[in-house]
Amino acid sequence: MRIVLIGAGNVATHVGSRLKSSGVELIQLYSHSIQSAQALGSLLEIPFTNTLKKVVTDADVYIYMLKDSVLQEVSTQIDARNALHIHTAGAVSIDIFKGKKKNYGVLYPLQTFSKTKAVNFDEIPLFMEANNEFSLNILEKVAYSLSSNVYILSSEKRKYLHLSAVFSCNFTNYMYLLAGKLVNKAGLDYNILLPLIEETARKLKSLTPYEAQTGPAVRDDKNVIYSHLELLKNDEKLSEIYKLLSESITAEFNNVSFG
Amino acid sequence: MRIVLIGAGNVATHVGSRLKSSGVELIQLYSHSIQSAQALGSLLEIPFTNTLKKVVTDADVYIYMLKDSVLQEVSTQIDARNALHIHTAGAVSIDIFKGKKKNYGVLYPLQTFSKTKAVNFDEIPLFMEANNEFSLNILEKVAYSLSSNVYILSSEKRKYLHLSAVFSCNFTNYMYLLAGKLVNKAGLDYNILLPLIEETARKLKSLTPYEAQTGPAVRDDKNVIYSHLELLKNDEKLSEIYKLLSESITAEFNNVSFG
Repeated sequence: MRIVLIGAGNVATHVGSRLKSSGVELIQLYSHSIQSAQALGSLLEIPFTNTLKKVVTDADVYIYMLKDSVLQEVSTQIDARNALHIHTAGAVSIDIFKGKKKNYGVLYPLQTFSKTKAVNFDEIPLFMEANNEFSLNILEKVAYSLSSNVYILSSEKRKYLHLSAVFSCNFTNYMYLLAGKLVNKAGLDYNILLPLIEETARKLKSLTPYEAQTGPAVRDDKNVIYSHLELLKNDEKLSEIYKLLSESITAEFNNVSFG
Repeated sequence: MRIVLIGAGNVATHVGSRLKSSGVELIQLYSHSIQSAQALGSLLEIPFTNTLKKVVTDADVYIYMLKDSVLQEVSTQIDARNALHIHTAGAVSIDIFKGKKKNYGVLYPLQTFSKTKAVNFDEIPLFMEANNEFSLNILEKVAYSLSSNVYILSSEKRKYLHLSAVFSCNFTNYMYLLAGKLVNKAGLDYNILLPLIEETARKLKSLTPYEAQTGPAVRDDKNVIYSHLELLKNDEKLSEIYKLLSESITAEFNNVSFG
């Protein structure tokens, strides 16, 4: 199984490194940026190019790990008729390849990747979708060389999964970011929050988020909420976020108790 | 050092258990609910009461672990002139005791407590404040019997710390809750999100929240954002949260790049 990697961003870096360490044969890397192509190509010790026409056409698998907005354009320009073409984008349908490729699929890793932070691939759930049996067969081999935590999921359902990842990862990280600004106002370093942040995540191993919810909004403790809004009065955006989330939590838990 | 615990909620349960296991002498527990008083009193193997007049008056320390709204009322009714009176509320000033007690202080644990989930006290940061040297001296003893991670912090600064805990814990948990609803729409179990949630928290050990931010909003990827809003079109509240947070992330990171 000879694989070409298309892309040199966060996903390509981690997927490429993992495939290499699993002993999969990586034969080339493409990125539109020569710097990125060189950086990741060197790391993986494989040939790289920033010219689409120089991408080899005789590989078995092409894995597109690109921004959603350029996925269509780049994949159309790679002509390898009998190969399997896979993208890794949670929010993009498998149909982006329809009528353009013979064998295609999706392999979506439910994880957050930053270039400089190692991840434990074994625990990452992977969601597969393929257009036919032949594609599924090869896709499975790629998937299991990355993780043993592999599922089949349709594009329709994957949309919701991807959206849930935005809430549980991207928006969560943004809460950390906002908390960091506030903790600085207390004259303290960001690190002071880490035990709280870790425990908040860890709680979910034994409690549901409903059971784990604490704080003034779930208690509908208006005194505390007003004193917080007073502290935020000079920051319109942050006040708005605080109000909307607190109202929403209060409503959620009142509905639960009376429902 | 003979201690009376006032309250039988999440904080009292964890603080009480930890003090007991540190060998501190707990002499009584009060809660306005006899069921709660009995449950925690039995767990800690100490006398309990739900009658304020029966609270002993000869203890050295009284620790109030109550809802902010009843703290004033309950503490006023406990008359032990020479004792140290401590509350554990992040959002309440030390001045709640001013003119009413001789020796008083605050001991705020920066952690989220749920009754049924054990916590590792050693890593919990504790923030102390006392009205005089005598109070600080005793307060320190109580604090170090709970954790070795002890700081002094004024009420003014503690307000910001408490607010930052709402963002990094309460709002974060609410993001998990919303994500759970969405993952159910994909026909998947909540647990599928746990590796992502843990990695999102773990990332902060090596990256700042600015460096760790991923997702469509930070990339200003409007196609993905619109497709997510399309999925949420029948849920007004969730759409509003998604829009506000995405706009705020996009603005934050544009300011950073041009700033």
